[in-house]
Amino acid sequence: MAQAAQESIADGEFGGEYDGDVGNEFDRDTSVTLREPGVYDAELSEGWAILSAVNGGYLLAIVARALRDALPHPDPFTVTAHYLTPSKPGPAVVRTEAVRSGRTLTTGQASLYQYEPDGTEVERVRVLAAYGALDSLSDDVRTSVKPPTLPPPERCLGTEDGPAALPGDSGFTQRVVVRLDPETAGWAVGSPSGKGEVRGWFSLADPREPDPLSLLLTVDAFPPTAFDLGLMGWTPTVELTTHIRSRPAPGPLRVFVTTRNLAGGYLEEDAEVWDSADRLVAQSRQLARAPREARVPEGR
Amino acid sequence: MAQAAQESIADGEFGGEYDGDVGNEFDRDTSVTLREPGVYDAELSEGWAILSAVNGGYLLAIVARALRDALPHPDPFTVTAHYLTPSKPGPAVVRTEAVRSGRTLTTGQASLYQYEPDGTEVERVRVLAAYGALDSLSDDVRTSVKPPTLPPPERCLGTEDGPAALPGDSGFTQRVVVRLDPETAGWAVGSPSGKGEVRGWFSLADPREPDPLSLLLTVDAFPPTAFDLGLMGWTPTVELTTHIRSRPAPGPLRVFVTTRNLAGGYLEEDAEVWDSADRLVAQSRQLARAPREARVPEGR
Repeated sequence: MAQAAQESIADGEFGGEYDGDVGNEFDRDTSVTLREPGVYDAELSEGWAILSAVNGGYLLAIVARALRDALPHPDPFTVTAHYLTPSKPGPAVVRTEAVRSGRTLTTGQASLYQYEPDGTEVERVRVLAAYGALDSLSDDVRTSVKPPTLPPPERCLGTEDGPAALPGDSGFTQRVVVRLDPETAGWAVGSPSGKGEVRGWFSLADPREPDPLSLLLTVDAFPPTAFDLGLMGWTPTVELTTHIRSRPAPGPLRVFVTTRNLAGGYLEEDAEVWDSADRLVAQSRQLARAPREARVPEGR
Repeated sequence: MAQAAQESIADGEFGGEYDGDVGNEFDRDTSVTLREPGVYDAELSEGWAILSAVNGGYLLAIVARALRDALPHPDPFTVTAHYLTPSKPGPAVVRTEAVRSGRTLTTGQASLYQYEPDGTEVERVRVLAAYGALDSLSDDVRTSVKPPTLPPPERCLGTEDGPAALPGDSGFTQRVVVRLDPETAGWAVGSPSGKGEVRGWFSLADPREPDPLSLLLTVDAFPPTAFDLGLMGWTPTVELTTHIRSRPAPGPLRVFVTTRNLAGGYLEEDAEVWDSADRLVAQSRQLARAPREARVPEGR
């Protein structure tokens, strides 16, 4: 991690004007180093692991940062990730491909690999994305919905209000500040609402304003909605697609995650992220496997 | 088209037990022919074009059928398509890749290409997908929502109830039977609701029961929600992700398409497809460019 942190990426032929703040935890831990055109070295930090697996949104931010450098357009507009094998803290390489570049959008693809002991590359995540320039978009907004109401952060519940941390669970929860609406946190004390909703406030523990890259982390940073359905356990993501719809205004983000359909052992999780200016800045949907252990609440 | 129709695909090493009904229009026009392992020839039928462009859902069904033959698992669970260049009626080739295969899921990738006059391949669509076996899933369903109500088909509006067909617009609308809830069809007579909703019944004109492949057509078969927002015009899809959640029961499908956020010249379209047994069988979301011509309804 230290090696990667000390070298910020060289500006590429295109874009790459932003190389992060190496003093900030998120920027440091998502940094990528150009190895050769289109190929970037990265170091997956154990700080962003939940139990032994590296968080999927953190991985996505690393891949998106490599694509940002490799493609002629700077901002992820839509990013789809398929999670193939569990990622572990340690070295990784991101191989990017510019699929097609138009005037306003570039389609790109990338894969993140880690290494077997013999050096063989094992693919962890494959990403297909379209990049554009958020700052070139018009200011026309006709959102039909308003952000649902959320209690102020001081009336929401943080990690410190929950049961004792799980062994090995401390990394990720120390790096993000997630404060849950008490209505959607009952699962933590054995009383899930059964609605499949998780809502709350999000910011980074090492303070940094949100941007398109950190939004890719934000959409996958909340407890699984399965918990609120009474299903505690591992909820591995099969596929996660995120649309970044606007550059977020400074300040904390509000995140609303819902599941409408748990069926056949799979569920979708839809996340909406609203910024401090009440703009819907990101929408994501993932298909995940439901936890096997069922703890169905009363009344369902 | 006729050539492709006469040769159904040979069963592959894996899966491929279904080779379609060559007598049915949809099956015939989505057929693919194995050229070499993982590579399939197809013929894009002008019958599925809207104006001069081939419908995106129809393209997706062709690519998904090639992947179905190439991968060890039979059913698309999640399929993401990036539309790169407009497809035209005529020959095409689908090149597939099995990315990673596990016990219950296989991740696959595919691209559909067409040919320049000199034979150069031009990529039209790139797809990243996970395939599984729908019939192996448990019957556990805990959908939190019910299908919204829709008037019966005879009280909905079909193409024959609308204004005169556009020149060249007849292909696609002759192949699908879409009957719109009158509440969401006001745009056809200059009175869009402004809500960004389109709802209706769907079936194939040449009768055929729905299946996972035809669901990929269904999610992209309705008029753009932009029309209901008062924005008439071309709404090109950047990216479309579809989750197939269950094998659909026989009978007509109910489709609900909504847009929550039109901003900066882009909008998302979320589609839900419900089968005759009231199961949510498909969920899709696409990012599309909003039409440039704005006809904002009164009161907005």
